[in-house]
Amino acid sequence: MPKQKMKVASRVAARKFRAKTVGLPPGALIHVGEQKIERPVISFFDYDPGKLESRQDVSIEECLAMKSSSTISWINLDGIHDIPLLEKFGQNFDLHPLALEDILNTQHRPKLEEFEDYSLIILKMLEFNEETEQISAEQISLVLTPHYVLSFQERPGDVFDGLRDRLRRSNGRIRQRGTDYLVYGLIDSIVDSYFQILEKLGDRLALLEEQLIVAPNQDCQHKIHHFKRELLNLRKLVWPLREVISQLYSGEAQLVEETTAVYLRDLYDHVIQVLDTVELYRDTVSGLLDLYLSSISYRMNEVMQVLTIMASLFIPLTFIAGIYGMNFENMPELKQSWGYPAVWGIMIACVIGMLTYFKRKKWF
Amino acid sequence: MPKQKMKVASRVAARKFRAKTVGLPPGALIHVGEQKIERPVISFFDYDPGKLESRQDVSIEECLAMKSSSTISWINLDGIHDIPLLEKFGQNFDLHPLALEDILNTQHRPKLEEFEDYSLIILKMLEFNEETEQISAEQISLVLTPHYVLSFQERPGDVFDGLRDRLRRSNGRIRQRGTDYLVYGLIDSIVDSYFQILEKLGDRLALLEEQLIVAPNQDCQHKIHHFKRELLNLRKLVWPLREVISQLYSGEAQLVEETTAVYLRDLYDHVIQVLDTVELYRDTVSGLLDLYLSSISYRMNEVMQVLTIMASLFIPLTFIAGIYGMNFENMPELKQSWGYPAVWGIMIACVIGMLTYFKRKKWF
Amino acid sequence: MPKQKMKVASRVAARKFRAKTVGLPPGALIHVGEQKIERPVISFFDYDPGKLESRQDVSIEECLAMKSSSTISWINLDGIHDIPLLEKFGQNFDLHPLALEDILNTQHRPKLEEFEDYSLIILKMLEFNEETEQISAEQISLVLTPHYVLSFQERPGDVFDGLRDRLRRSNGRIRQRGTDYLVYGLIDSIVDSYFQILEKLGDRLALLEEQLIVAPNQDCQHKIHHFKRELLNLRKLVWPLREVISQLYSGEAQLVEETTAVYLRDLYDHVIQVLDTVELYRDTVSGLLDLYLSSISYRMNEVMQVLTIMASLFIPLTFIAGIYGMNFENMPELKQSWGYPAVWGIMIACVIGMLTYFKRKKWF
Amino acid sequence: MPKQKMKVASRVAARKFRAKTVGLPPGALIHVGEQKIERPVISFFDYDPGKLESRQDVSIEECLAMKSSSTISWINLDGIHDIPLLEKFGQNFDLHPLALEDILNTQHRPKLEEFEDYSLIILKMLEFNEETEQISAEQISLVLTPHYVLSFQERPGDVFDGLRDRLRRSNGRIRQRGTDYLVYGLIDSIVDSYFQILEKLGDRLALLEEQLIVAPNQDCQHKIHHFKRELLNLRKLVWPLREVISQLYSGEAQLVEETTAVYLRDLYDHVIQVLDTVELYRDTVSGLLDLYLSSISYRMNEVMQVLTIMASLFIPLTFIAGIYGMNFENMPELKQSWGYPAVWGIMIACVIGMLTYFKRKKWF
Amino acid sequence: MPKQKMKVASRVAARKFRAKTVGLPPGALIHVGEQKIERPVISFFDYDPGKLESRQDVSIEECLAMKSSSTISWINLDGIHDIPLLEKFGQNFDLHPLALEDILNTQHRPKLEEFEDYSLIILKMLEFNEETEQISAEQISLVLTPHYVLSFQERPGDVFDGLRDRLRRSNGRIRQRGTDYLVYGLIDSIVDSYFQILEKLGDRLALLEEQLIVAPNQDCQHKIHHFKRELLNLRKLVWPLREVISQLYSGEAQLVEETTAVYLRDLYDHVIQVLDTVELYRDTVSGLLDLYLSSISYRMNEVMQVLTIMASLFIPLTFIAGIYGMNFENMPELKQSWGYPAVWGIMIACVIGMLTYFKRKKWF
Repeated sequence: MPKQKMKVASRVAARKFRAKTVGLPPGALIHVGEQKIERPVISFFDYDPGKLESRQDVSIEECLAMKSSSTISWINLDGIHDIPLLEKFGQNFDLHPLALEDILNTQHRPKLEEFEDYSLIILKMLEFNEETEQISAEQISLVLTPHYVLSFQERPGDVFDGLRDRLRRSNGRIRQRGTDYLVYGLIDSIVDSYFQILEKLGDRLALLEEQLIVAPNQDCQHKIHHFKRELLNLRKLVWPLREVISQLYSGEAQLVEETTAVYLRDLYDHVIQVLDTVELYRDTVSGLLDLYLSSISYRMNEVMQVLTIMASLFIPLTFIAGIYGMNFENMPELKQSWGYPAVWGIMIACVIGMLTYFKRKKWF
Repeated sequence: MPKQKMKVASRVAARKFRAKTVGLPPGALIHVGEQKIERPVISFFDYDPGKLESRQDVSIEECLAMKSSSTISWINLDGIHDIPLLEKFGQNFDLHPLALEDILNTQHRPKLEEFEDYSLIILKMLEFNEETEQISAEQISLVLTPHYVLSFQERPGDVFDGLRDRLRRSNGRIRQRGTDYLVYGLIDSIVDSYFQILEKLGDRLALLEEQLIVAPNQDCQHKIHHFKRELLNLRKLVWPLREVISQLYSGEAQLVEETTAVYLRDLYDHVIQVLDTVELYRDTVSGLLDLYLSSISYRMNEVMQVLTIMASLFIPLTFIAGIYGMNFENMPELKQSWGYPAVWGIMIACVIGMLTYFKRKKWF
Repeated sequence: MPKQKMKVASRVAARKFRAKTVGLPPGALIHVGEQKIERPVISFFDYDPGKLESRQDVSIEECLAMKSSSTISWINLDGIHDIPLLEKFGQNFDLHPLALEDILNTQHRPKLEEFEDYSLIILKMLEFNEETEQISAEQISLVLTPHYVLSFQERPGDVFDGLRDRLRRSNGRIRQRGTDYLVYGLIDSIVDSYFQILEKLGDRLALLEEQLIVAPNQDCQHKIHHFKRELLNLRKLVWPLREVISQLYSGEAQLVEETTAVYLRDLYDHVIQVLDTVELYRDTVSGLLDLYLSSISYRMNEVMQVLTIMASLFIPLTFIAGIYGMNFENMPELKQSWGYPAVWGIMIACVIGMLTYFKRKKWF
Repeated sequence: MPKQKMKVASRVAARKFRAKTVGLPPGALIHVGEQKIERPVISFFDYDPGKLESRQDVSIEECLAMKSSSTISWINLDGIHDIPLLEKFGQNFDLHPLALEDILNTQHRPKLEEFEDYSLIILKMLEFNEETEQISAEQISLVLTPHYVLSFQERPGDVFDGLRDRLRRSNGRIRQRGTDYLVYGLIDSIVDSYFQILEKLGDRLALLEEQLIVAPNQDCQHKIHHFKRELLNLRKLVWPLREVISQLYSGEAQLVEETTAVYLRDLYDHVIQVLDTVELYRDTVSGLLDLYLSSISYRMNEVMQVLTIMASLFIPLTFIAGIYGMNFENMPELKQSWGYPAVWGIMIACVIGMLTYFKRKKWF
Repeated sequence: MPKQKMKVASRVAARKFRAKTVGLPPGALIHVGEQKIERPVISFFDYDPGKLESRQDVSIEECLAMKSSSTISWINLDGIHDIPLLEKFGQNFDLHPLALEDILNTQHRPKLEEFEDYSLIILKMLEFNEETEQISAEQISLVLTPHYVLSFQERPGDVFDGLRDRLRRSNGRIRQRGTDYLVYGLIDSIVDSYFQILEKLGDRLALLEEQLIVAPNQDCQHKIHHFKRELLNLRKLVWPLREVISQLYSGEAQLVEETTAVYLRDLYDHVIQVLDTVELYRDTVSGLLDLYLSSISYRMNEVMQVLTIMASLFIPLTFIAGIYGMNFENMPELKQSWGYPAVWGIMIACVIGMLTYFKRKKWF
């Protein structure tokens, strides 16, 4: 039970941020959300088809050179709570104050925002906690320019390791292509990770269904409630992504080339598939609730039948026994030698009558 | 319970206004809604990048000068029940009778109405009463012209203090921009305050959920019903705002410049986020109702099982005891010395049989 | 209960009309619906900014003069069941047979039909019967031409008295304007009357909610069912009006001038507000049903707990008493002087045990 | 109960047809559905404003002459299972194989199909069986060409008798107009018959509702289920008709003239009214289910209260009586002369206590 | 119950595939889904109006000749798990890596993807397992080029035998037409097989409904749950097909000729009919759940009434008998000779009173 509580609490926290910004000018930089890392870390990849340079934990000044070079650069920042650092990013890479505000506000919906010479893409990286069975979200902001990509993460650890490996291999397609393909690769990694989460959720739902059929109990009900909420949340996080990707490939983002658009269309199909599956799971969960409720009803019925059969059989018998337990002086039956067996006979007849009745009613 | 009643009553009152206007010509000025302030108060801000003048409690004549000055002016009226004063506003600032009627009718949906040389924007400022857990709405009407902004409030006290502070500081962006940016600032303050209300609502829902899991009672049910209605109401108030802002930035309002439109697009995202959260809360509340109902069902089941077990165990035993409490003269078992222990034996066998049966049915 | 029945019957009657027209040519004039007045009555208003003539109960011939005069005329017919009279109207005012059929068929949805040189507008005037709490509809058909307006009502009595007063006053705006403004005035009066009905409905819902919280009974359930149906019906009657008015102001009706269109846009907002409120009430009613059902469930739980506690406490005790009511000769306990107090002791122990158990289960 | 079964079975049969066609080339003529008439019968009407010829049971060769004549002809075939005859129709009247296949497949949705020089319209003629309360559908296919109309029915008996009478009267509008008006007349007859069915359905729903309020039983529940399904089915059959008519009058069917289009627009309104009513009935039926379920719940509550009151009153009394039925030698109360009255006193006190408690709980 | 479990498990498996592809470059070929055949088998049909060649189990090289021949060829591959073979297909027939990836990923939604000189169509072939009552899907991918069609199946066995027969007959329409008509024929066969599955599902639903009305038990509930899920799944698989076919005939696929488009439009109608039926079944299933739940409720009511009647009749009688079983010395009634009959009289009066009460309550 405290588990449930904690989850709600954390979601509430998610709404807390805006309260702080009331009365502040738009574009004022405040980090909303919890600080998830001690010290922000900058790393970069700088490559063209022929060569690759990759470094961890560099200073912002070391990145500036790449801004104007003809190679493709991917500069990543883990930890966005350090506002002065972010402002420096803003000044050095000419980011609009509203863009910086969006990057800092980790409660944003996924969206694509076109600025004069760059695009800002906001995404959610999801993680499924095996123990609490909760999905937690981390916000990833991507800035796409002709020669470099900036990515901002809340904390270290992401789903881009496969992509990094492909960058390091010199023969991959990714090294031949521009920043738009790099951004596609980043989003693709994130969408692929959604499938993993759906798979885990599906396993849990299967377990829950099995338990519901074998032995429904109150814990099932809490779990149904829990998954319902997680799926609501998941849909809210993934749904806007559909539009983001469709805007990317339909030419709204001027930096995406036609050769990359075909990949984005494929990615769009994957997102649709994710959303389909979320809807399917939502229907499944609501089916599980029906199953739970009807199981409870059915079981109640069974319980009541047992009670009714027991009571209906024995209450009349007890009454008969009670009759001849009375102490009236004038009870002629008591004196007869056939009295006791006769009473037994009546009782057995009663029982047979009742059982026939219940049998006909199909109660057992 | 009287609490619940009061709330309904107040909402009903909200519908009362129209009854008064039946048969009146359109544009007839009647103040609908309750009078929320003793005496209307006019205040203004008059500024350009270089200087700022701000005064409280002035007369309408003092404001007229600003009408044609080249500075940006924001004239605010607290208390709209004084109809002659409002008519004077109308004449002096050339407002259409229908515009005045809309300002007076505090039951209006949020909307944007374009007139020849000004725009009328109607908004709702919301407040969450911590004690009654109800959301009350105050109507704000904004008149946007090239050189001044009029705002009409039902009562003093608003969410614009942060904005006023920014106006007073000479270096803020707001001092450099036109009336469209001022109006953006006003709407932004209102939308920011919605997040605060959502946060408080979220806290209450979290508390309610916890209580439902720990100890559901009839009070929970009334609270679920209450929040359901508040959210319905909230959605009804916020939903049209979406369209208002989209009309503002999409060029329907001719007074909004392109540089302000980018801020309004950002604001639009915030309103979408508010509506998403309202929908999420609505789904949450309906999930809570399911939880409540299934808890009740589950608990009923438990109660019935206890009853059935108790009755099924003891009713047969009582019957057996009743048998040997009969007073027939001819009951041979009664005379036997092993009779009494034998009866105990039968009884214990009965009990063990029943318990085994219930165990197998997984009743405990 | 006969009340409920009557209502359904009347709604069924509403569907009866079409059966009569099967096999008849389209445009055949048959009055469908009940005859609601003895004798049809014609009255008219004839005015221009300078003068006004108004007469009651005139013949159709007296109206013909106004057809070609330059003044604005409003000719009203109360009672449409007199088909020859209506045909005379049709011939004299050049109405299309389909238009006449629509006027006669009082089961029509609200609609706007454009004919060559006039527009036909069909509306519903609603009335709330305080006693039966039912909404009854009367159909109003308006024919809008450049110089006169025809209105057809099913029976005398309408919501246009305020409008008539304004016509009589020489200084009102309505006297300066054309037939389109007159039609606007008529529709406005009808929409204003909807607000009155919504207000009364709201009051009843508030009372019902209060009763549900204090003491839910089966009558509540029937009332919920009743209001649900009335709201369904109300929505069905008002919903198409939205489109009618939008067609009027959006230029589809060629007789509506731009100066009147601004008033119609305002009216459109009011209709949206009516529909919003109907939706809100529908959600409220379905919330009341949930409240009723969960109250019933909760109460059942309470009842069951009382039963279970009583039975669980006393059934074991009765069994113990039954044991020592047996008549075995060999029951050593009976002979002991401590037997009786000991039995009391055991019984009291039983009761305390049970109470502790129920307490721990939070049953009281 | 066998009734219910039969209905489902028949609906299933409706789906059977497709199985037969698997693997066949498209356009292969197979009659799907049951054969509903012994021998197909051809009849025709051939008319112009001046003269009319009408014959029953003619051969296909007798119809061919009308194909090229300048009069308007309506050729009707009752019974479509005779495939060679249909193929002859196809060859003689130049019908596309797909058109013939559509005519034969009596499970088709209503639709309008435009071919090069004719239009194919598929419709459903409905019948309400008073006894089984089921709606059965018969498919009508109309082929509209400039000079003749073909109609194909599954069996004799239709709703066109009124239309035939109008054709025979020489002064009707229908004789002056072309084939498009004839087709309008046919569809109008069918839509009018829908209103009759809705009226009958409405009567049944009213009866059902009355019974639900007076004495809900399990039969009600089966009827609710039955009507729900019939309405689902009805909607499925009528819904596509909306689009068919809208396509007809909006110019998609090149053979429909503007003067007929106005009648079709009116017809469209009628179809919308049918669909509105179907939706209203669906909502009504779902309201009836709520009513039924809450009645059942309420009644259960009542039953439980009676049980609880009886048990709570008498179980303690029986226990007290049991106490003094014990045979302990040492029970001092038994020897006292006030013992018996005292026990009665205690019992009466118990009863009064319980009754007060239940009274306070408002159980009776 | 293990049945249910298995099904869930298999659906979960369906989601497993994506997990494997995380971090891989897009277009990397991995077979996702289970391997359903030992050894892949290639077969082909090569025909023109005059001649036909058809062979089973050929090598890929034997097919290459047909690539450039002027005849129409249909090359079919059963078993897609052999990745090198598929890559060879890709190279020889110039398939895009993304196309190959889509073919291998058997979890794809149906879709149409246009590539430069061919179209990729992904479809689902469904099978209904009579025993487990589950629908299993097999993915079919079609590659449509001007001169040949490639089809990829997961395992041998399909619904195309009828089509093959028509190909072998030299006089069929299919031999006269191009590849677009062949593709139409393939899709048509698949859609026809959907009707078979719907028919079987309909039969099962009819049986289930009958059982629900005659004797609802917990097995019904599990079946309802089962069918609900199967229908959810079915809809998910068929829904996107609507769009695929509409894209095919609306000119988006450049290889489809106008003469084939008319057939595709007909096919589109069939798919709509499938979806309509799926929706109808979904509504039916949810109606069955309502039926089940209300049956359970009704039955509970009956059970409770029996219990209450039995208990209310006998508990008071038992109490009376208990009274006169007490052993007080001073109980004057016991000594009277009329005592015993009088008690019987009282008891009978009690019973008659109770029965009258229950009769009036209509409990039996």
